Amino acid sequence: MTASTNQTNKRIFLAPSPRRVSEIFDRDDLARLSALGELVIHEDGPVSDTIFAMKAADAEIIIGQIDLPQSRLDQARNLRAIINVEGNFLPNIDYECAFRRGIRVLNVSPVFAEPVAEVALGMALDLARGITRSDRHFRQGVEKYGLEANRDAYSLYRQHIGFIGMGDLGKAILPLLTPFKAHVTAYDPWLPAAYIQSLGCEPATLATVLATSRVVFVVAGVTSQNQGFLGANEFASMPAGASMILVSRAGVVDFDAMLDAIESGHIRVATDVFPQEPLSANHRARSLDGILLSPHQAGAMSDALSQIGKRAVADAELISKGLPPIMCKVAQPETVAMFRSKPISKS
Amino acid sequence: MTASTNQTNKRIFLAPSPRRVSEIFDRDDLARLSALGELVIHEDGPVSDTIFAMKAADAEIIIGQIDLPQSRLDQARNLRAIINVEGNFLPNIDYECAFRRGIRVLNVSPVFAEPVAEVALGMALDLARGITRSDRHFRQGVEKYGLEANRDAYSLYRQHIGFIGMGDLGKAILPLLTPFKAHVTAYDPWLPAAYIQSLGCEPATLATVLATSRVVFVVAGVTSQNQGFLGANEFASMPAGASMILVSRAGVVDFDAMLDAIESGHIRVATDVFPQEPLSANHRARSLDGILLSPHQAGAMSDALSQIGKRAVADAELISKGLPPIMCKVAQPETVAMFRSKPISKS
Amino acid sequence: MTASTNQTNKRIFLAPSPRRVSEIFDRDDLARLSALGELVIHEDGPVSDTIFAMKAADAEIIIGQIDLPQSRLDQARNLRAIINVEGNFLPNIDYECAFRRGIRVLNVSPVFAEPVAEVALGMALDLARGITRSDRHFRQGVEKYGLEANRDAYSLYRQHIGFIGMGDLGKAILPLLTPFKAHVTAYDPWLPAAYIQSLGCEPATLATVLATSRVVFVVAGVTSQNQGFLGANEFASMPAGASMILVSRAGVVDFDAMLDAIESGHIRVATDVFPQEPLSANHRARSLDGILLSPHQAGAMSDALSQIGKRAVADAELISKGLPPIMCKVAQPETVAMFRSKPISKS
Amino acid sequence: MTASTNQTNKRIFLAPSPRRVSEIFDRDDLARLSALGELVIHEDGPVSDTIFAMKAADAEIIIGQIDLPQSRLDQARNLRAIINVEGNFLPNIDYECAFRRGIRVLNVSPVFAEPVAEVALGMALDLARGITRSDRHFRQGVEKYGLEANRDAYSLYRQHIGFIGMGDLGKAILPLLTPFKAHVTAYDPWLPAAYIQSLGCEPATLATVLATSRVVFVVAGVTSQNQGFLGANEFASMPAGASMILVSRAGVVDFDAMLDAIESGHIRVATDVFPQEPLSANHRARSLDGILLSPHQAGAMSDALSQIGKRAVADAELISKGLPPIMCKVAQPETVAMFRSKPISKS
Repeated sequence: MTASTNQTNKRIFLAPSPRRVSEIFDRDDLARLSALGELVIHEDGPVSDTIFAMKAADAEIIIGQIDLPQSRLDQARNLRAIINVEGNFLPNIDYECAFRRGIRVLNVSPVFAEPVAEVALGMALDLARGITRSDRHFRQGVEKYGLEANRDAYSLYRQHIGFIGMGDLGKAILPLLTPFKAHVTAYDPWLPAAYIQSLGCEPATLATVLATSRVVFVVAGVTSQNQGFLGANEFASMPAGASMILVSRAGVVDFDAMLDAIESGHIRVATDVFPQEPLSANHRARSLDGILLSPHQAGAMSDALSQIGKRAVADAELISKGLPPIMCKVAQPETVAMFRSKPISKS
Repeated sequence: MTASTNQTNKRIFLAPSPRRVSEIFDRDDLARLSALGELVIHEDGPVSDTIFAMKAADAEIIIGQIDLPQSRLDQARNLRAIINVEGNFLPNIDYECAFRRGIRVLNVSPVFAEPVAEVALGMALDLARGITRSDRHFRQGVEKYGLEANRDAYSLYRQHIGFIGMGDLGKAILPLLTPFKAHVTAYDPWLPAAYIQSLGCEPATLATVLATSRVVFVVAGVTSQNQGFLGANEFASMPAGASMILVSRAGVVDFDAMLDAIESGHIRVATDVFPQEPLSANHRARSLDGILLSPHQAGAMSDALSQIGKRAVADAELISKGLPPIMCKVAQPETVAMFRSKPISKS
Repeated sequence: MTASTNQTNKRIFLAPSPRRVSEIFDRDDLARLSALGELVIHEDGPVSDTIFAMKAADAEIIIGQIDLPQSRLDQARNLRAIINVEGNFLPNIDYECAFRRGIRVLNVSPVFAEPVAEVALGMALDLARGITRSDRHFRQGVEKYGLEANRDAYSLYRQHIGFIGMGDLGKAILPLLTPFKAHVTAYDPWLPAAYIQSLGCEPATLATVLATSRVVFVVAGVTSQNQGFLGANEFASMPAGASMILVSRAGVVDFDAMLDAIESGHIRVATDVFPQEPLSANHRARSLDGILLSPHQAGAMSDALSQIGKRAVADAELISKGLPPIMCKVAQPETVAMFRSKPISKS
Repeated sequence: MTASTNQTNKRIFLAPSPRRVSEIFDRDDLARLSALGELVIHEDGPVSDTIFAMKAADAEIIIGQIDLPQSRLDQARNLRAIINVEGNFLPNIDYECAFRRGIRVLNVSPVFAEPVAEVALGMALDLARGITRSDRHFRQGVEKYGLEANRDAYSLYRQHIGFIGMGDLGKAILPLLTPFKAHVTAYDPWLPAAYIQSLGCEPATLATVLATSRVVFVVAGVTSQNQGFLGANEFASMPAGASMILVSRAGVVDFDAMLDAIESGHIRVATDVFPQEPLSANHRARSLDGILLSPHQAGAMSDALSQIGKRAVADAELISKGLPPIMCKVAQPETVAMFRSKPISKS
């Protein structure tokens, strides 16, 4: 619990690209980092081996997503933590080497959980109650009123709701559903049944979640093993009129099969993610009635970005004191290599 | 607690117009009513004095919104309760006479609280996070992605949220906001400060609610005293970019002033109610960017209608046993005459 | 919503016996009452007919539990409300006459709900986990440690918990149980099944509640119909080792049969109420191992008393403005005559 | 996510001493372990080097708290996890070696969080409302009734409550306090302010927690740095009549100074832990009026023990599939060496 007070040989290397320092750290954040040691900032251009050797090799903490192959880690003898100021673990680090050395590898994905969760709830309410569609009809002059507008509407109260994946994002959505007294089932092959039950959910197979839920949140990340695992058969197995909210990665669905299922009127979908962004100008997704389109805006709020710096600094302080980090996502040896998110320029 | 078992001289008169019996009562509901006494149904056409004298004058309970002036109440010597299967108290009853006689007057407004509350939350999330607007931009091919789409977005988490009115509907919205850990202020001139505090809200003046809230739920009913009380000055007093969700009655706002405030870009509004319904085809509200239009669909779900019968029957059973009703809204002598909702054909 | 500003002919008559004014009203409370009209306080001795005629007959609001037979109500032509500053409705008022006149009759029982609820939870935890008993064993030098101390202990988490009665007190206990994720059944013959379900409880018969609950809260008031309804057969029907928490009125149980059931080791009981108070010095209840004895202290906190004045004043203000009361318990014509609590000097 | 299907060379070594296998694993638990590989159980006597070499050296998972110095870990080339079926990390393992090897070290402390949390709440209610003391007075024939019994009572509702330590146990107590709407401050030098805030608590110094809380939960573990850190000065700084609930380790307080503070009437204390257990027969703690004595029974329930096996098995299954454990407490390199709990034979 005692912070090392002699900080003469401590260094923090901050290379936040593709973000700017000022986007994610305010004056107070930077002052707190400086209090931990010598703060060296590299903001312009890539970190060459020369720059690395000069500026980063002595660092106790590296903040950013620079390349860290074994050769660089071998140079960085003081290194205790690498904090990526993005929401993913990328293949830029020799993780095995880092774990062997006891170097903590972190990312700031927790800052995105709340903004995405509230949009996911908004989307679920929208699909169930027809909010955006009715507004569109109003603007087209074809709205119907009252009961007539609600012929295929349903409520989230006491609804059967399913989750595909129950990681940080799923756990951020769950409390928003509590007041609706929904029956929640969840499928997550990485989690024991007892854990899912402890969250107040019923553990279930993928097939059961799909077949019994009127509203399904897809919050599973893409791994080497689950690309496109939601396809035509899965959509067909959902109840007619069911809603799917896709806010993790487009890679988990067969996007064309999903559009087919929407176009046929079988399901409704809200999606924040797309196979290509921007979506091509004449993409058929743009004109389907049963889809709610969101331009990858669920997480990327400036409010969230300002939390990135605060979480990174808080964990840097803990690590500097010899304590375990708690505000960022900690890479786990067992799973870090499974993720296959492609880096996104800014999200 | 003992139900009268001799039901030979008890009668229930059921005249649900403008609804049909089958819309709001299922077979089980009707069986339960029949168990209380002789069930007399009048479904076709108005209840003339002759029909009243023949069918309703002996009733212990009248279910419906037929005219009940003092002359009819004087005939109805056994009458113990009048249950309107709509959500409002209308000027069809001589309330003073009913109260003097100890006749309970009820309506079924509680069935609408949940459906309206979830739409109100969906609208608040929509305005704060730009859900419908982004979908519209996508369909127009002008969407922006990520941070660019969120330039004026804000979150409901830890937000300053205000209520104008804190009746049944406000109290249904509050638990939906709990997981967002919002700071909630409420203005309701009919409620003591201590009561508002007991709900976890800060009591405030109308001016304070408007000036300090980024999201305002307008859930006040129209009374003889508050028609159009939200006008140009009130909208101007709201913070730039604030959201207003209007789900009670259009009569509480100056609708034109509201549209001006939206058109100027000062505030965003979601509204489920309009001065005239249907709205005229070329009404300027249909083309404003900052409005979310909902065709009086927040409450009128078939799920809600099926609850009408169940609530009415449950209270009829209590009244028949000599117990106070608890499932319906009970008319209060002090306030029943203040409401000025115009009857709506079906809501 | 507009308060009458001309208060020349309004009078508030305050006769709080058996409490003193200063016990329940602070300076601010009295100032608020004075703002409503002429405040006339009578604190010493009973209110004779002469005093009544002089001081109370003109009052708009009478605060206290003075006798109000029809003869006095007939004199009190301005009377709009009677606020008893105790927790019960007593037979001191001609209720029928008051209801016919539209006079609101209130009591302050809501102030006792929280203090009693927390004690009831404390008692349930105590019986389930053996808290008081272990402390007693420690003082006797016969304590056992760890697992050995817990041979007959059980947890409230995910426990089967029953309620007998689900009025204001039951509803105050329920949220305290929420974090324990208990399965709650409730028996209350005055409430519809749908209402009990809306509270998150399963409606059940008395027999089912008793037979299936490991912990039972008895929170039913005494009525003309339920005196002693929990007797030997009911206690025998409870599971071995079950806990009963009695915090309403001793009159609902057959006290001797209850002590027999405790003495036999079949059930554990915590009771805050007794057939006679004080309990006789050599009463066998004082030495049973399976009982937790509480000297009618669950509700009677000075914190609660200070809330009495605030609730009474808030409702007096509403009534004075022509609005319905909301902070006090409102007498219901159907049930007020059923209660048979004997007046308690001070509780 | 793919379980290794070839389990011929996998072994699980189970040596649960000081517990018996049957105390913590049921038939289903053992079947699940057997499905992971060859299950080798050693229940009688210590694990000598010979036994280790024969039975444990090949294991993938070792369940128990046998000695694991580097020499044994060096033999155990397949070892991926060590699961201690107790609630503490003991100095029986060469942790540095284990971390370097990427061997997960777990304990089952989470099973004790709920049972201890509910007792801690029961104790807090007991001290605040005088439950055990009143029962004792009743048995002594000196009870007082109603208000007289409550002269120094206070409520947990809206109370100022403090935590010293905010680990798993504190986080299990917090939701139990939510319905009391308490103001909670917490002191934990291992946690960032932002983390404590995210739990709904106000971060504070130790001095502030002590000086401003009427109820203090002491849930900090003993470390090399905090032994006896709550002493005479700390107790003196608490408000008169404040309650302290001690449910972690006796080592964090100066026990004699604590008894002095109780004896003087300054504070009330409930304690589940003692410097020696059993406490000596004539220890002065046994006769103080202001203490609530609990014989280390808060966690040690048979319900909790049965959860040990289930948590251990669930994590063994995850580890066997190459996934990170989630049901047990995972040793952190930064902190595991700081804990100084002495092993308890059975808790």
